[in-house]
Amino acid sequence: MTVSDARPDAMSDTTPDSKIESAIRWQDNRLWLLDQRALPTQQSWIVCEQVDQVVQAIRNMVVRGAPAIGITAAYGVVLAAMARSAAWREGPEVWSRAMAADIAALAASRPTAVNLFWALERMRRLLTSCLEKNAVEDDVLVCLLREAKCLHESDVQANRTMGRLGAALMAEYGMHSRGVMTHCNAGMLATGGYGTALGVIRSAWQAGLVDRVFANETRPWWQGARLTAWELAQDRIPVTLNVDSVAAVLMQQRRIDWVVVGADRVAANGDVANKIGTYNLAVLARQHGVRMMVVAPSSTFDLQISRGADIPIEERGAEEVIQVQGQVLAPAGINVYNPVFDVTPASLIDAIVTEKGVIEQPDGEQVARLFQRTPLH
Amino acid sequence: MTVSDARPDAMSDTTPDSKIESAIRWQDNRLWLLDQRALPTQQSWIVCEQVDQVVQAIRNMVVRGAPAIGITAAYGVVLAAMARSAAWREGPEVWSRAMAADIAALAASRPTAVNLFWALERMRRLLTSCLEKNAVEDDVLVCLLREAKCLHESDVQANRTMGRLGAALMAEYGMHSRGVMTHCNAGMLATGGYGTALGVIRSAWQAGLVDRVFANETRPWWQGARLTAWELAQDRIPVTLNVDSVAAVLMQQRRIDWVVVGADRVAANGDVANKIGTYNLAVLARQHGVRMMVVAPSSTFDLQISRGADIPIEERGAEEVIQVQGQVLAPAGINVYNPVFDVTPASLIDAIVTEKGVIEQPDGEQVARLFQRTPLH
Repeated sequence: MTVSDARPDAMSDTTPDSKIESAIRWQDNRLWLLDQRALPTQQSWIVCEQVDQVVQAIRNMVVRGAPAIGITAAYGVVLAAMARSAAWREGPEVWSRAMAADIAALAASRPTAVNLFWALERMRRLLTSCLEKNAVEDDVLVCLLREAKCLHESDVQANRTMGRLGAALMAEYGMHSRGVMTHCNAGMLATGGYGTALGVIRSAWQAGLVDRVFANETRPWWQGARLTAWELAQDRIPVTLNVDSVAAVLMQQRRIDWVVVGADRVAANGDVANKIGTYNLAVLARQHGVRMMVVAPSSTFDLQISRGADIPIEERGAEEVIQVQGQVLAPAGINVYNPVFDVTPASLIDAIVTEKGVIEQPDGEQVARLFQRTPLH
Repeated sequence: MTVSDARPDAMSDTTPDSKIESAIRWQDNRLWLLDQRALPTQQSWIVCEQVDQVVQAIRNMVVRGAPAIGITAAYGVVLAAMARSAAWREGPEVWSRAMAADIAALAASRPTAVNLFWALERMRRLLTSCLEKNAVEDDVLVCLLREAKCLHESDVQANRTMGRLGAALMAEYGMHSRGVMTHCNAGMLATGGYGTALGVIRSAWQAGLVDRVFANETRPWWQGARLTAWELAQDRIPVTLNVDSVAAVLMQQRRIDWVVVGADRVAANGDVANKIGTYNLAVLARQHGVRMMVVAPSSTFDLQISRGADIPIEERGAEEVIQVQGQVLAPAGINVYNPVFDVTPASLIDAIVTEKGVIEQPDGEQVARLFQRTPLH
């Protein structure tokens, strides 16, 4: 993995101020990832040529956000296949085992976002189907790359559809304070492009429904301060940054109509795992008459898991809480509890917006019905 | 104001590991303040010889916490009087005006904690009474210093009384999870010594009622991470540090019996202004069947203010939110909303513990009744 001061071609062709449309790019048979750890002060790209570099990039949060992790992993499978020529020559069984190991390594990078497993399963099925058809190696590579690019592009399309549906929902209920709140970053950076929660916010802003976005800074990883504030500022959408505890005060002051967030996994009953702090916001929203909207493509649903309590919740290291860019903020050796996701029960969610349509007052029956529909786009 | 690597005598007499009992010390006619901005990595003391140094120390949060600010301001009045010999020689009216200006400067240091104004009012009345008795200058100085020390010692006594009362209340209701949560720092560092909320937690720990304390890190100034975790670790009380958003999850997991916090100002109707995040916790506590305890000496009550909405809430600069020890965490020029206190309505508070006794389900009538009682200690 190399840190690059350069940008992928499509970037360097443009002016320095030009907007980045995706934090994930495939170019010259390599995967370029915008290093989200360095934002907003630096825009540097990391170039992955091997699958273990992709695993590390996901684990270390060079790339984060459920849909973005899924897309990155899909490209990771392409890199894996490109590196498995020797195994290919040993025959389909050897190659399959080698690829299964690479896919398992990608799957072990992070536990909570289901898009990762969804994307890897799509790639795995395609591999199997290629082998069944006795495809030649080059055709397999072309096929895998086409699939990864398709996942990427479909995600952007889904986000634009959800943006439209979410904004329409806001219009339907009417905006009073014309303020919306978001948590973490569910924007371009967290997806293939455009964003889930930020896609809805972008659409609602363009439709003239929203005057101001309140971005919770989102401890411990500062996705709100570093990423969401940066994305919205780039789009010149008025944004106010606040520490997470201020969310309650903003609702008390009646300055928020909707809390709009993404999701890392939605259970079959409509329970939602998302960034730590989401459950807190859902409790506050219900108490203050603020509506709670979750925006997530169908790839974020895990119908194998019946309820939120069964979703594995990642705990990360103490250093994320007690250090900020090397500065120590707590006594040495202190015990730290750092779950980085939480589960919001469906009963506290007013609407789940997907590219297949909107579920209001979600429950198991409505989720099941949604998955019988075809996508709108 | 000088930064001192030395410690006040009582400290240097003892071993390096000896426990600091108060962050405020009067020694050699100077005021020594433990620099709370440098904790937990450094224990350095700042020495104030002039009143404007005390104003700056309060404003810049060398010292913070409502009772500690009051005590510091009282010592500030002593330093002011020591420096006003020239005015004294010009007669009582000139001296009174000069002292009034110094007291006004101290009062303008921070707006929310009422203990500041309460302590200054005590000192101002004493000044007036000294002048009425035609006291000589030396006697006035002795008298003022005695009063400041009395405020300091009374605060510690009040904290010990509240510790006993708060722990008794916990015992009365019974502990189930045996976990308590605290926010910000309402400990030795925030008071004359022992602490308000942490005083109750210390007493409850000694009484065997509590197994673990969960300390919210308390953005934006990290009082939980830097100060509370440090105080509790020094006392070897088991403490877990978490980001503020984790509070909701800990309650969801039924790991918390009580949220125990201090206060910066209590209105006549029992509404409480305290560190930003307290209102959030009170909403969460009520929703999860967790009890909410506010621990505050009578000097924190402002009977002139009828309800919480009338308490002035300090907003501090954006840099507190977007920078951590010089590291920038948000895009340049971003709009920031940084109220550093919030107001919790009395209806969300289960008990206010004071040195005069405990009020359960506080309201205006109960607060009024409390102030007809005499202190228990």
